[in-house]
Amino acid sequence: MGKATDELNPPPRLLMGPGPVEADPRVLRAMSMPLLGQFDPVLTGYMNDVMALYREVLRTGNRWTFLVDGTARAAIEAAMVSILAPGDRVLVPVFGRFGHLLCEIARRCEAEVRVIEAEWGRVFEPERVIAALREHRPALVALVHGDTSTTMAQPLAEIGAACREHDALLYVDATATVGGMDVRVDDWCVDVLSTGLQKCLSGPPGSAPITFNERVEERVLARKHIEQGILPDGFRAAQGPVIRSNYFDLAMLMDYWSEARLNHHTEATSMLYAARECARVLLAEGLEAAHERHRRASRALGAGLRAMGLEIFGDPAHKMPNVTGVLIPDGVNGDAVRAKMLDDFGIEIGTSFGPLAGRIWRIGTMGYVCRKRSVLLCLMALETVLRAQGFRAPPGEAVDAALQAWVEG
Amino acid sequence: MGKATDELNPPPRLLMGPGPVEADPRVLRAMSMPLLGQFDPVLTGYMNDVMALYREVLRTGNRWTFLVDGTARAAIEAAMVSILAPGDRVLVPVFGRFGHLLCEIARRCEAEVRVIEAEWGRVFEPERVIAALREHRPALVALVHGDTSTTMAQPLAEIGAACREHDALLYVDATATVGGMDVRVDDWCVDVLSTGLQKCLSGPPGSAPITFNERVEERVLARKHIEQGILPDGFRAAQGPVIRSNYFDLAMLMDYWSEARLNHHTEATSMLYAARECARVLLAEGLEAAHERHRRASRALGAGLRAMGLEIFGDPAHKMPNVTGVLIPDGVNGDAVRAKMLDDFGIEIGTSFGPLAGRIWRIGTMGYVCRKRSVLLCLMALETVLRAQGFRAPPGEAVDAALQAWVEG
Repeated sequence: MGKATDELNPPPRLLMGPGPVEADPRVLRAMSMPLLGQFDPVLTGYMNDVMALYREVLRTGNRWTFLVDGTARAAIEAAMVSILAPGDRVLVPVFGRFGHLLCEIARRCEAEVRVIEAEWGRVFEPERVIAALREHRPALVALVHGDTSTTMAQPLAEIGAACREHDALLYVDATATVGGMDVRVDDWCVDVLSTGLQKCLSGPPGSAPITFNERVEERVLARKHIEQGILPDGFRAAQGPVIRSNYFDLAMLMDYWSEARLNHHTEATSMLYAARECARVLLAEGLEAAHERHRRASRALGAGLRAMGLEIFGDPAHKMPNVTGVLIPDGVNGDAVRAKMLDDFGIEIGTSFGPLAGRIWRIGTMGYVCRKRSVLLCLMALETVLRAQGFRAPPGEAVDAALQAWVEG
Repeated sequence: MGKATDELNPPPRLLMGPGPVEADPRVLRAMSMPLLGQFDPVLTGYMNDVMALYREVLRTGNRWTFLVDGTARAAIEAAMVSILAPGDRVLVPVFGRFGHLLCEIARRCEAEVRVIEAEWGRVFEPERVIAALREHRPALVALVHGDTSTTMAQPLAEIGAACREHDALLYVDATATVGGMDVRVDDWCVDVLSTGLQKCLSGPPGSAPITFNERVEERVLARKHIEQGILPDGFRAAQGPVIRSNYFDLAMLMDYWSEARLNHHTEATSMLYAARECARVLLAEGLEAAHERHRRASRALGAGLRAMGLEIFGDPAHKMPNVTGVLIPDGVNGDAVRAKMLDDFGIEIGTSFGPLAGRIWRIGTMGYVCRKRSVLLCLMALETVLRAQGFRAPPGEAVDAALQAWVEG
């Protein structure tokens, strides 16, 4: 593997796992730009740009639309810890691994967590969530939009309206879906939503866009405290329970991202550049065009896999277009296939978790990687690797089927 | 300021504030490298490289030496929240703004915080800390090594030995000092120490190296819980109180950075590249050579400022070599000077906080920026700007004095 002091020299890869995927070269270029001081007017201008750009990306008018400086789960925790005080009731409808993560984070906030579960590979009927909402009367419903662990996307519009009606806040983890399929914060009555750059936004992991509305703002401000040493004159702490994290305190992040520019952390300059460029690139293509590209790639990949004699996992009506679960055929060693794909072809496909471990591969078509070339190369390589494992697909049919499906759109 | 959709195009800056400063171009280049999958053997190899490189940078044999994916305060919070359970007693000797931050974070962990304070511009006599240690019997002493708010560096060796003797853990925030002056984790009996990339390590903010020893490991493992959905067979949660953060749970981060490679967050790939390159660049120069460069720049800058008729802030015996406080002369508008420095010369110098607000500028000579050219350009620009403010320094004497001091070393 070389020495720790060797020059950094990552080999070429086609990243078709469930994320992170390859960053758009324009995003990589943005990250190589010189740094600016924390309160340089050009940098604070870029912070304002990021707020404006992500309002458009997330289809929201929310003033509070900014970045949490960490990976996707950092923003999940920022939302939870800023909203939830000990004893607050949370309803988490779980349909995959990342639903369990929401429970886990909520429990660490000492919230009272109520869980309903759907079988992996399915989503919830809205009625079931609404019934649970009536039964448990939670302060917060926390829900994953697209769970890469199962490839499923949960429809949100009816749930959002029901949460509003029952006076529950709705948090949505849209890490896997923003940029790859429709995400409508305001139309769907989502109160707080977060995402990450490393999937359909074509950036690196490490910065997490978040947006929230006045309902969340009010709750957070009721818990606002500011650290000693930077207290503005006349500031009085709120009466609500102190938010248990400094780093993830949305009230302080609001002061940092607003005109107050009250010092909190030092904004991660290069990741801010990356986040800005991710949004610019996506909006230049157009949200609808990007979503259509993901749908087309998903159809082409699916057509190819079926032509190879493989079976697609999960409820087709709710499959995310940006990741596809493939049942590992009997007698085939899933990990050996993945290793060969990486070693011989430089193509990464994903393994899986929990009840699906060893049962499916997950093939991502996300963001910059989501294009015809990726689908075709992946199918040809997979066919070759499977042949060596004794699984004989009709030669060449997968790539031809995918090509045809691509054209038919 | 342009539109949100304009191309990213930061203007050239010489960043001589208290950090962030300019990144080494080799670090910027590393961040523009293509991404790798999260468990790609090349990427996990780079993670191992980072662990090895930072052991050398921090002069420690600690196995647990890795990155927290956030800015410097993220690692402070990771240390605090993973160690401190509610009611644990913490002693914080405060000699500047970042000492207050340690108190603030410890209080959010519901620790019982005891504070001793030193005047801004001075450090603690070790005896005073040791007496407080005897009096308060804390579980943890939390201390800033170099506080940029006052430019002071606290000597640590005697305090570390005393903490060991009194069975208290010692946490040190070395964000501002690593790479700019000697930091010896093992020799000084520091149990857990964290830093950031954006000061003397010549990188961007957004990744925070941390190191801790077996004493901390034992305490953290006694609180170890793992999230549902990725529980390994046979895992049993520890009996200690649950760590209140998922993102900052050092026990889970250990599993992610060890051979277990248990999935936690998705490592921030580009920031990992940056962190690796920061350490490589520093070690290629040599720690001693880098420290000497910072001392030389500090002496030259100080000689220049004094030749200009300005006064250096704080106890000279404990001033950090990488940042210099300068008293703002009577009748001079400090903010107007900083604005002119930035607008006319593209040079950033720092303002200050709390009791020093409006009283001093802070001029950084950190990392990549710490070089003869920076000191000379800054002095000439400052002389010019001050002249327009009515403060007449003897023309040209500052830059000549700095040049001479540089040569004399």
